[in-house]
Parts: sequence; structure tokens; C-alpha cells
Amino acid sequence: MVEANVELLEDEPQYKEFAIEEFLVRSEPYYRPVSDELELFQAAYEQHIPVLLKGPTGCGKTRFVEYMAWKLGRPLVTIACHEDLTASDLVGRYLLDAQGTRWIDGPMTRAVKAGAILYLDEVVEARKDTTVLIHPLTDHRRILPVENTGNIIEADDRFLLCISYNPHYQSALKDLKHSTRQRFISIEFDYPPIDVETEIVAKESGCNEEQAYALARLGDKIRNLREHGLAEGASTRLLIYAGRLMTHGIAPRRACQVAIVWTLSDEPELQRSIEEVVHSIFE
Amino acid sequence: MVEANVELLEDEPQYKEFAIEEFLVRSEPYYRPVSDELELFQAAYEQHIPVLLKGPTGCGKTRFVEYMAWKLGRPLVTIACHEDLTASDLVGRYLLDAQGTRWIDGPMTRAVKAGAILYLDEVVEARKDTTVLIHPLTDHRRILPVENTGNIIEADDRFLLCISYNPHYQSALKDLKHSTRQRFISIEFDYPPIDVETEIVAKESGCNEEQAYALARLGDKIRNLREHGLAEGASTRLLIYAGRLMTHGIAPRRACQVAIVWTLSDEPELQRSIEEVVHSIFE
Amino acid sequence: MVEANVELLEDEPQYKEFAIEEFLVRSEPYYRPVSDELELFQAAYEQHIPVLLKGPTGCGKTRFVEYMAWKLGRPLVTIACHEDLTASDLVGRYLLDAQGTRWIDGPMTRAVKAGAILYLDEVVEARKDTTVLIHPLTDHRRILPVENTGNIIEADDRFLLCISYNPHYQSALKDLKHSTRQRFISIEFDYPPIDVETEIVAKESGCNEEQAYALARLGDKIRNLREHGLAEGASTRLLIYAGRLMTHGIAPRRACQVAIVWTLSDEPELQRSIEEVVHSIFE
Amino acid sequence: MVEANVELLEDEPQYKEFAIEEFLVRSEPYYRPVSDELELFQAAYEQHIPVLLKGPTGCGKTRFVEYMAWKLGRPLVTIACHEDLTASDLVGRYLLDAQGTRWIDGPMTRAVKAGAILYLDEVVEARKDTTVLIHPLTDHRRILPVENTGNIIEADDRFLLCISYNPHYQSALKDLKHSTRQRFISIEFDYPPIDVETEIVAKESGCNEEQAYALARLGDKIRNLREHGLAEGASTRLLIYAGRLMTHGIAPRRACQVAIVWTLSDEPELQRSIEEVVHSIFE
Amino acid sequence: MVEANVELLEDEPQYKEFAIEEFLVRSEPYYRPVSDELELFQAAYEQHIPVLLKGPTGCGKTRFVEYMAWKLGRPLVTIACHEDLTASDLVGRYLLDAQGTRWIDGPMTRAVKAGAILYLDEVVEARKDTTVLIHPLTDHRRILPVENTGNIIEADDRFLLCISYNPHYQSALKDLKHSTRQRFISIEFDYPPIDVETEIVAKESGCNEEQAYALARLGDKIRNLREHGLAEGASTRLLIYAGRLMTHGIAPRRACQVAIVWTLSDEPELQRSIEEVVHSIFE
Amino acid sequence: MVEANVELLEDEPQYKEFAIEEFLVRSEPYYRPVSDELELFQAAYEQHIPVLLKGPTGCGKTRFVEYMAWKLGRPLVTIACHEDLTASDLVGRYLLDAQGTRWIDGPMTRAVKAGAILYLDEVVEARKDTTVLIHPLTDHRRILPVENTGNIIEADDRFLLCISYNPHYQSALKDLKHSTRQRFISIEFDYPPIDVETEIVAKESGCNEEQAYALARLGDKIRNLREHGLAEGASTRLLIYAGRLMTHGIAPRRACQVAIVWTLSDEPELQRSIEEVVHSIFE
Repeated sequence: MVEANVELLEDEPQYKEFAIEEFLVRSEPYYRPVSDELELFQAAYEQHIPVLLKGPTGCGKTRFVEYMAWKLGRPLVTIACHEDLTASDLVGRYLLDAQGTRWIDGPMTRAVKAGAILYLDEVVEARKDTTVLIHPLTDHRRILPVENTGNIIEADDRFLLCISYNPHYQSALKDLKHSTRQRFISIEFDYPPIDVETEIVAKESGCNEEQAYALARLGDKIRNLREHGLAEGASTRLLIYAGRLMTHGIAPRRACQVAIVWTLSDEPELQRSIEEVVHSIFE
Repeated sequence: MVEANVELLEDEPQYKEFAIEEFLVRSEPYYRPVSDELELFQAAYEQHIPVLLKGPTGCGKTRFVEYMAWKLGRPLVTIACHEDLTASDLVGRYLLDAQGTRWIDGPMTRAVKAGAILYLDEVVEARKDTTVLIHPLTDHRRILPVENTGNIIEADDRFLLCISYNPHYQSALKDLKHSTRQRFISIEFDYPPIDVETEIVAKESGCNEEQAYALARLGDKIRNLREHGLAEGASTRLLIYAGRLMTHGIAPRRACQVAIVWTLSDEPELQRSIEEVVHSIFE
Repeated sequence: MVEANVELLEDEPQYKEFAIEEFLVRSEPYYRPVSDELELFQAAYEQHIPVLLKGPTGCGKTRFVEYMAWKLGRPLVTIACHEDLTASDLVGRYLLDAQGTRWIDGPMTRAVKAGAILYLDEVVEARKDTTVLIHPLTDHRRILPVENTGNIIEADDRFLLCISYNPHYQSALKDLKHSTRQRFISIEFDYPPIDVETEIVAKESGCNEEQAYALARLGDKIRNLREHGLAEGASTRLLIYAGRLMTHGIAPRRACQVAIVWTLSDEPELQRSIEEVVHSIFE
Repeated sequence: MVEANVELLEDEPQYKEFAIEEFLVRSEPYYRPVSDELELFQAAYEQHIPVLLKGPTGCGKTRFVEYMAWKLGRPLVTIACHEDLTASDLVGRYLLDAQGTRWIDGPMTRAVKAGAILYLDEVVEARKDTTVLIHPLTDHRRILPVENTGNIIEADDRFLLCISYNPHYQSALKDLKHSTRQRFISIEFDYPPIDVETEIVAKESGCNEEQAYALARLGDKIRNLREHGLAEGASTRLLIYAGRLMTHGIAPRRACQVAIVWTLSDEPELQRSIEEVVHSIFE
Repeated sequence: MVEANVELLEDEPQYKEFAIEEFLVRSEPYYRPVSDELELFQAAYEQHIPVLLKGPTGCGKTRFVEYMAWKLGRPLVTIACHEDLTASDLVGRYLLDAQGTRWIDGPMTRAVKAGAILYLDEVVEARKDTTVLIHPLTDHRRILPVENTGNIIEADDRFLLCISYNPHYQSALKDLKHSTRQRFISIEFDYPPIDVETEIVAKESGCNEEQAYALARLGDKIRNLREHGLAEGASTRLLIYAGRLMTHGIAPRRACQVAIVWTLSDEPELQRSIEEVVHSIFE
Repeated sequence: MVEANVELLEDEPQYKEFAIEEFLVRSEPYYRPVSDELELFQAAYEQHIPVLLKGPTGCGKTRFVEYMAWKLGRPLVTIACHEDLTASDLVGRYLLDAQGTRWIDGPMTRAVKAGAILYLDEVVEARKDTTVLIHPLTDHRRILPVENTGNIIEADDRFLLCISYNPHYQSALKDLKHSTRQRFISIEFDYPPIDVETEIVAKESGCNEEQAYALARLGDKIRNLREHGLAEGASTRLLIYAGRLMTHGIAPRRACQVAIVWTLSDEPELQRSIEEVVHSIFE
């Protein structure tokens, strides 16, 4: 085995690296529309109206934005928001160079200049300075003040800002202020209906139609357990994980146990409730 | 589609960039005065009296300042305040250069030197060091001490400081101290009356007079829901978004749902109340 | 109008810039003494006893220090204290240069060397490290340890430290420790009596004697509202603002509304009480 | 003795140093599987499904990952998470050089490029910015955005992310968010059964079969004390420590006292309870 | 007057500057011993036992240390502790130079090398890292580890550490840990008896014997008010301030009002109580 | 006296400076074993088992480690833990040089490379990132990941980690996590019995046998006062301080007062209780 290791390390590195604003979605992503969300997004894009996507974990918001970026032929710049992300992380900073300091644009500045779709994921997790940065970008001005260089950038005409958040998470402390919120139209997402989810699970996991249907029904039933203490239902992604393990030869109940039951909760009792649902479907 | 992408990226970047203190409002902004606010601001400007604008989200404070900057022919420097904005961000900082360190003026220093209208938006969100910076600028001294360079700047004679805040947001913790507050005259703003708002919505969204009137009435009715648990009424901006989506062909009820109902609240019950108001107007 | 803008920008910048320790008060400031405060300050200055000024917002503490600096012929270095002001901001810091690092004296060090009046405004807002810095300056040693350079500076013989604070603001959390407090003599200030305030308002706003007297009476009455929920009375400065707007042609009631009523409170009920006082005086 | 010291210091240093991504497990680690965990991990690795390991302190999670890294012939990059670990610590940072700044990849970037197993130990201890970093690595994108360089790295095809956490520790404050959690399949671990643990203790401590069996029974009994106020049972590691001290000639009861009793608790009463269990086994 | 100003500014600066470790007390300070404190300190100095001084504000602790430094002929390095003082501030830091980085010793390192008396004033205000720094300096090792340079310094044989604190201030949160405390012998200080204080006030303020005796009695009476709500009694320093103002011609009651009454409290009622005591003595 | 001062300053500095990892204990420290602690530590050292020392302030833990370092002929690297100690402080950091940045090993890295005894004193005071650093050093891997250089160091074979903590201090907030704790064997320490302590006090303070015996009995009695509100008993160190002052000619009761009574408590009542014990022994 040690020999194999050495051999692997002699391989060329197999990763790829490219500039953030060149992140074009190059092949059509698989996205199954549920309602008129494509038309709404397209109208907002053409009218320069920023878009807010609301919905639970793993219901397809990120995939939807990716699909729209592909459809509109724009680069996609995604930023996962969190409380340690500073304005400089987004806008840019000075770096020391042989010739003195050099300015490096941050991902937000790159998106504004490249006319990209800028997607701020879970925006309520962001710090206040990040949230405030988007204000002048989201009204009629469409500008980004870059305070460190003393400049103002007027966004490329094809630039669009899109943000997401999960209303189930919001506490009193972490809410989107109205002065931010009222700069967006809002599209609400939910888990797909069973037939659509069957189609998605089958396509993404490689399992057969029957298994996919069983998993979609499982997802639906588990989501109804939310009233019984489950913080969040099973995402479509977890159903796909179970499907893939089954495709790989793991027994269905075991696949559901590691992909779904143990992932959704640490509570033995809650785990037993979910397990019962699994057993009722995969007998 | 991928080809189209590549083609777009070969385009020249379409953004524009200029110095903060050169941000002149070059064409007359659309602003519809409600009372004698133009005269009050002009008197304050000529008397060197700083101005505080109070009022709810999206009632037109920012647009008003923009209009006054245009009317007075002064550059406009806008700073959205937040708790992570440091005094250095505003006043300036040293940068390392090939010849050693070089001082870069911050946006506040640039405004003071250029005789601009300096507009601090949502000033109560600022940190204490930012709030304190404006004290010597707002009394008879009209100076800005730049501690890092050891200098004091006497403001250009045409400089004016203007701040805004939303009294509905203020908690005990985040209030404007009297030692700051009593350095300003205060102008209170509210949403425009229905006829004025109809005029604004029609002009800004491109929808027809009848639709604009319906949207203005909708805004008025929703604002009365505030006693029923709605944190903040619909801003004029949201009415304009709905109007634009309608102009783009989206059905009125759907346009109001994504622009107004889903934006104003995450609470299903509250959403239903707003939706009822929408349906009563767009039958 | 756009042409006018361009023209203005072609003007030479009209601001002035000078070193902090060269901030001499060059013409006699208007200050109207109320008691023996001039003698007390002069005695403290000659005896090297630091001075603490106590009193409400806008009652003239800053103007008094300015007057004494002019009278004693010393430069005046004013520092508005706040919780983000570090010891380095005051004492100085190293800057990188072509020849390595270079030390830049902070405003406190400059004041100590130049024998200035050093005025720390609202000292309880300062961080602990700032408060502690002044200890060796305020006893028989009269030294400032500059830890970063490893040096100690013995103050110029003409140096005096003066601090201010507003006892109405102090909570249990933000109080002046006795080990700091007992290094000063204390002079208590209050709003001036009506006849003195009439004289001040007339002189500073350009309004006539009758208007000034009315405004002084208004100030007196409003300060008595403090028992009815008003956090802080109207400062002399606000009365002057109202006077100036009146001089500019704004109707007295409207001038008092924007300069005083709306500035003092956001509470509709409290605003009404103040408005009643205004109407009883400006009938 | 002093001479001996000098002699030792004249020795060549005996440590070894190598790059993080070259940390290959070169000889088969001793790991005794309990169930089908090897197959599950292998399936996840081949399907690009990230893996979450749950279980108490010292039950073998780290050893299991090490074994899998050896089995799959991949380098192993382990990061012990804690609240002071920044995104820069993981992704990389700029360093100043004679030719200006130079970028240094952090351990996460190195793992992504080298196609390593990246193991984030006790992931709930991590700061939010660390947790969020792994999101784009754990869905279909498998990318790592390096914001400071403005680049995006697509992971090597053989890269796998694995995280661990101990559900007994989790409080309401420090929990894994569902938006993170639902990106993993989960494998639950527990202490090994007595016969397996006997085998492990004997092999790792060098003590005889009988002693090892006694220690394994001791571990089992102590773990049942958890209901009586013991925060956490004795890990297999502590049993091995006791075994090694016994091998070294320390009397069994004394060995158990220092390795187990005094380590598990500071409470005299609880110590007495554990001591009784020790005495019942080592009479 | 403006001419006078200009003239003053043409003066040479009158301050002095010297290295911290060269701060020798050059002339015998006025110190009036109360008990055997001189012998105790001398014994501790010769036995290398660190000394803790306890007592209220302004009772003479600082003056005592100054006197002992003069008596022992050692330099005196005083550090006023506070929560923003870092270990680097005390031990030293690297500075960038034309030839790279250069290490600058902090005041603690300078004191350790120069064999000074190192006096940490109000040590409980220090951060934990500062408190911990003194541990290896205060046991038999007498070393200072300088982690940034990777060195250890063995203190000069004549080095002594002395700390002070005021037991009246200590809350549960800010207390000296026993692991720190039990490294010192402790000398308790209190205000001097009336005859001693009379002597001190007369000598330091230049007032006559009778006035000094009246002030000493005043101090004694006010300190007995502590049970009536006064946080801290009048320090000897405040009595001296009153004496100096009287020497300068200010009337005794007025001198006591600004130096003592207004300084000790902001509470009108408490001020009245103290004022009564003043009036009973200065009739 | 001033002349004497000048003379002293002309002396050569008398301190010594050497690298942290060269801190060899060169002469046998005085350590009086109480039980089999020497054998236990030796066994742990040879078996590569990390050691945790538990016990009250000043009971001899530090001296014990010093003795073992001398006995094993290894350098001793001691780090006093506190909440402001960062991982970089321990592992190392980059410094800027004429040729760019240069890496400086921190004390932990130096200890790992030199095969030293690394002693982390009061480890629960450390920040999480420091605690986590020791995990890979304390299991079978014995490695230290140096994230800033991207390297991993395998410890010298003679390296041993030893930590200490005082169970009396631990609150719920500051406890050693089980995932850290279960990486050590634990040796509990207490104050020495009277005969041993008599021997220690006589040897270390130079006082006579009778005085030493009286002091040891005093220590024993005071430790029994712990139930009566005393937070911590008198350490052996304080008894030695009292002995040294007595040797220097200070009367026994006065020596005990400053070394023990005033050091152990600020509470007058508690001081009286201790004083009574002193008087019962030193009549």
C-alpha cells in the first residue's frame, strides 16, 4: 500500500484554479421549475430589481440561482455570509508589493465590475457592515463606494444582486432590517412536490424509479415530523445521498440510517421516530 | 449558450469609476416636495446649521438630500453608518508606499475639504468614535481633527453635515445622545399622501395612472396594518417594484405578492392579512 | 445647474489645515461669566491643579475652556473621548518610512510638549487605558510615560489638564473612578440665568432683543419639563439655532418646531407638551 | 548530572519536519472494525459524499480516519477546530517578501489541491467563518473560493471532507446548523465491546491478556457510572495508559488511580465511587 | 493678547525627555513614615521578597515607593495597570527598520535589566496576561521569559517588584488570584493621623499651620461620612489642593467647595452633608 | 545619596539572557518527595504518557517539575497560561527582515524540537486554540502542526508534555474538557505534612528549627480555617517569607502579619481569626 501512496503523490495535481468573476456555469444545470420562478427572476433582472430567495435548507435555492446565471449567460459570484466576513473581505484591500501597496478587488467589486449575478447566501448571518454595503447597490444609484481607495463604482448594467435566507432560523437578534429588506422582491421556495422530487432523486443519485419514489415519500413524511420536535426536515440532498449509497450496494435501511436518521438528529428518541418512518417504507 | 457567455466576457467592462468627492448629482432628481422642507434646508445650509432628517424606511429622505445637493450645486458624499465603521474608515489612514507611508484622506475628510454635503445615513448605527468625530464639525468651530497626521482641518465654507435616522428602530441601547442630537435642527418625514405617491409611482415604474393609484392606496392601507403586528409599512420603493413587474407583464396580484407581501413579512398569518388587502384592491 | 456645479469644482479648495498644537484661539471668544469661574481657573492654572468641569449638554463648558485658553495665551488641544480611543491614538505611534519606522507624537504628547491646555471632553466615555494615562500627568510628577519609545516626558511648565463630564449621563457602569476623580478640583456649571441667556442668544443669532428674550424664556420653561420625562433640557445652542432661522425669515413657531421640538424628542406626546410651551410664548 | 545534560544537548536534534499535505500514513495503523464502517466510508469516498463521525471522547474516531487514509492511500490533513481559528488560518494568507507579498496556502487549500482526506476534528468548536468555508466544498460544486487571491479552486477528484463531533458536548449555543449538517452522511461510534477492547488494550499497552481483560471490564463498568454524575466515561486511551504503567511495574491499583480515577474527576466523592470499582476488579 | 500668544510660541519648548529606566528620584521626596514601613520594605528588598501595598486612594502609597527608590538608590519604573495593557506593551515588541525588524524592550524588561524598583499601580486592573507575566519574576527563579525573542532574562540582583491595590474597589470579578497574591508580603496603608496630616498639608500647600490643622480635621470628619453613602473619603491630595487655593487668595469655604465637595460627589444631598462639615470647621 | 545612584548606574548591567530551550536546571533543586511521585513521573516519561499535576497554590508543583527536569537531564520550558496567549505566541510567527519575512519558532516549537519538558502552568486559563494545539502532541502521533509554515513537526523522542491546574479554582465556565483531560495521567498534590514542611521552611528561609516548626504548625492550622471562609490556605512559600523576615530581625508576629495575615485576606474579621492563630503560636 505504501508504494501505491508514493505513486499517487507523483501524480500531477488534479485541481483547477480560475478567477472568481470567470466562474461561468458552462453546462445547463439540472433544475426542475415548480412555478413561474423563472419568469419572475428574468423580469427582475431586466428591471434591475434585486431578488431575495426565502426557503428551508436544501430546497434548491442555490441550484436555482446557478440555473438563472446559466440562462442569462452571466458569471456567478457566490458568497456564503457569516459573522466574521468583513467589508474588506468583500470590497478589497491593499497588499504590499515591491513597488509599494497594490489594491486587490474583493469578490463583490469583481462582481459589480463584471456584471455578474452576485449571490449572498444566508445574508442574515452577515455582519452589519456587509449588509450596509449593499444599500447603494440596491437602489436607483447602483453604486459601490470603495472607501479605501476613495472611489465610487457604478455597476455594470448587467449586474444583479440576489440574496437568500431561511426564515426558520431567524431569531429576534438575527433578522433582516426593514431598511435592507425593502430593497428586494421576494420569492418563497419550499421542498418540491413528491413527483418532482422523485424525478430529481432518480436523476441525481442514479437509483431506480421505485427507489427514488420511496425516498421522495420518505422525505415528505419526515418533513411532517417537524411538529414533533425535528428542527428541520430532510433536504432533497440527503435523499440523493441515500439513493447514491443504495446504488453503491448499501442496504436501503442502512443507507437511510447514515444519510438521514443519524444526520437529522442526535436524540435517540427522535432517531427512533424517523427510523420507524424508514421501516414503514423500506420493509 | 456557453458561446454567448464567452462573447459577453469579451465585452469591455461597462462600469464607471470616479472619486468620492466628485459625486455630483448631474441631472435634476425627481423629488416631489410635500411641505416647506426645501426652504428649511436652504436656510440651514446658509446659516451653517447641521440638519437631522427623521422618518421611516423608504419615505424619501435619501432622495431629498440628493435633490438638495443638486439644487445647491454641491458634491454629495453619502456614508451608510454601521457598527463596524471606524474613525479611520472615515477620516483616512496611512498606506505603505515605495517612498514610505502615504496618507489617504477618507470620505469624511474629502467632504470637509471639497465643501460637500456629507450625508450620514442611519447615524445611530455608527460606533461611538464615529459619532464623536462630528462634534467639532457641528459647532461654531467647524473643524475636523485628524489625529493620525496631527492636523486640524477647518471645513470649506460650503460644507454641510446632514444625518438621518428612523425613530421607529431606536431602542434604549441605540439612541442618539443629547450631546450629539442638540447640534442639529430636525426635519420629520413621513410617507407621502396618496395623490403625491400616485404621481411618484407612475413616474418611477412606468405603469399607468390607474395602476399607480391602486398601488398608492395599497401602500396607505398596509401602513395602517402597523398596529396589527407589522413592524414597518410598505415603502414607496416596494410599490414602484410592484408597478415595474406589472409593466413587465406579471399579473398584478402576483406582482404585489413577490414585491410586497413576501417582502414585508415571513409570518403566514400576517402575509394573509396583507394579501387580503391586495385582493380587495386588485380584484 | 450642472454648469454651476462644474464651475464650483473649479474653485480652489477653501479649507485650512494646521498642526493640532498650533490651534491658538486668535480672537477673544464671546464668553459671559456667571460667577467667579475665571478666577478659580486662573488660580488652578498657576498652582498646576488639574480642573474638572461638570454640567449639562450645551451649557457653555467648551466655550469657557476656549475663553480661558485665549486669556492665558496657550494653545488649546481638545479631544472628544469615546470608547474606541486607544492610548496610541493619544500618545503616538510608529509609522513606516523609507528609512524604517518613524515616531509620530499623538495629540496628548503634543499638548504636553507645547504647554497647551489639554481638554478631554466627556472623559467618562474614554476607555480605561486613556483614563490611566492622565494619572502621572495629574500629580506632583507631571510626566507622560511613552511606553512605545521607552521614554518619559516631563510636561512643559505651562501645561494644564482640563476634563469635562455630564453627571446626568453617568450610570453605575460609566463613572469616574475616585482614583482619577480625586486628582482634580471641580467647577459645576448650569444653564445661564434668563437675562444672561437673552444677551447670548441675541449676540449669537442676530435676532432682535425681544425674540431673544422670548427664546430665553422658552429655554427656561422647557428645562422645567425635565421632571415630565424630558431627558435633557434645550441647550443654549438650540435657542440660537431657532433665532438664526427666525432671522432668516422662517416663522417663529416653525423655527422652534424644527430647532427645538423635533430635536428634543421623538415621542409625539412629549413633542406636544413642548409645542404647547412654544405656542404660549410665540402666540 | 550536569555533564549528562550538556552531552544530551550536543546531540543532533531528533525531530522530523515535513509539509502538511505530505502527511501520509505509512504503515497500517492498528484499527479493529466493529461493524460495516469501512464499507460505508469507502462508498462515501467513491461517491464524493462528505462524512460526519459522531461519538464520545476517545472511542476511536481519529484512529478510524487514519486507517481509512492509509487504506485509500491518501494524505491525511487533520485540523483540530476551535473558536480562534480564522478562515485565513485554513485557506492561506499573504506574507511579505523581499519581492513584495507572497501567498502561502493554508492547510485546507493544501488538502483540496493534494486530494487529501481533510479531517476537521470537533467541528462545532469552529467559528462560523470556518464552518461556512466548507459549504461550497460539500455540494456538487466541490470548490473552495479563496477570497484573498480572488480565485476559486476546484478540488482534486480524490479529495474528501470528513468532520467529527461529540453529541454529548453540544449545548444550544454550539450546535451544528442544519444547513451545514445536511451536507454529510453520519456514522455513529461508541466504545468497543469488551472482547474487542481487551484485544486493543493488550496490543497497545503491552500488558498481558488477563490485565487487559480486567481493564476492559473496568472501562465498561465506569461508563455505566455516567448516570451517577460522571460527565464522560473512561476512554480506551486511559485504559491503555493504565496498562502501560502496569507493564512498567506500577501496582495495578496505583496505575488505575493516576491514569483513570484522578483523571476522570476532581470530586472526592465521585473519585471514591470509581475507586470502589477499581478495587472490585483489582483485588 | 494675540501678540502675547505668538511670543509664547516662539519660546523654546520647556519639556524634558529621558529613558524610562533612567527615572531616578534625584532629591529626597517628602515622606513622613507612620510606622515601621521603611524597615519592612528594606528587609523585603534585601531578601528578594516582592511587596504588595494595600490602601485607599491618595493615602501615600505612590509617594512611599518613590521615597524607597530614592533611599535604595534604584531607578523607579511605574506602570499604571489597566485592562487594555498587553504583555507586549510591557515586555517589548519588534519594530520595522531599514535593516529589517528591531526589538525594542518594554518598560518591564528595562526594569528587570536595570535592577530597578518596578511598581505596578492598581494591579487588579491589569489583564490576565500581564498578571501572569510577573509569576516567574516573583519566585526563586526571578526570570522574565520574552517569548517573542525566544529568550529568558534573569533579573539583575537589585531588581524588586512592588504592586499596589485598593481593597475597597475589588469586586468578585476583579480580584487578585491567590496564585498571584501569595507571591508577595503585604503592607497595609491608611490615611495619616491628624497631626501627621497637618504637617503634610502645611508643607505641601504653603498654607499656615492653623489652616492646615483645620483641613486635616476636615479630612478626618469627611472620612467618617463613608458610612453615610460616600464611596471614598477625601484624599490628602484634595486637602492640599484646598490649601493651595486658599494660599492663592480664594476664600476657605469656596476653596473647599471646588476642591473637596464638588469633587467627592455629584449627589446634591451628599454634597450638602459634606458642605455642612466644611461650614462647621470654617465658620 | 544621588552620588550613590550615579555610581550604581555606571555598574555593568547584572542580568543574564539565554535562549528558552537552553533553560537547563543546572544544580539539583531542593525537592522533598512525599510519596512515589518521582517513580510515576519517570514511568510516564519513558512511556511517552503526558502528565497532569493537580493541587492548590504553592504546594510545590512547579518545584517538582523543575526537579524532574534536572533528574532527567532535559531542558525545561515553562509557559504560564492565560486567556490572551495565542497559538502564534506558542508556535511561532513570521518577522519582517531585510530579506523578507523570517520565521521565529515559539517556545512550544522550541520545546518540541529540543526534546524538552514542556510545562503548561494553570492550563485551564489558556484559550481554546492553545488547548487544542496540544491534542496531536498528546496521542500516538506526537506531532505539532505549524499551520503558518504549512509544516508538521514530529516531536523529539525525549519530549514530554506536563500541565498543571488547581481544582479549587475551576468554575463551570473554565474547566478542562474531557477530550483534553483524557490525554493525561494525573498526579494529585497537597501541602506537605508538618515534619516535611518544617524541614523545607528551615532550609529555604534560614530560620532556626524551632521557628520553622512553629511556622509549619501555623500553616497547618490556617489551612483548617478554609471552612471558615478562607479561599485558599497559606502556601509553603508564605511560611518561608515569614521565616526570612524573622531571620532579618523582624519580630515574629509582625513578620507573620505582613507575610501571611495581610496577604491571605482583605477582610478585617478573617484577618482577626488568622491573627489569633498567629498569637496562639508566637506568644
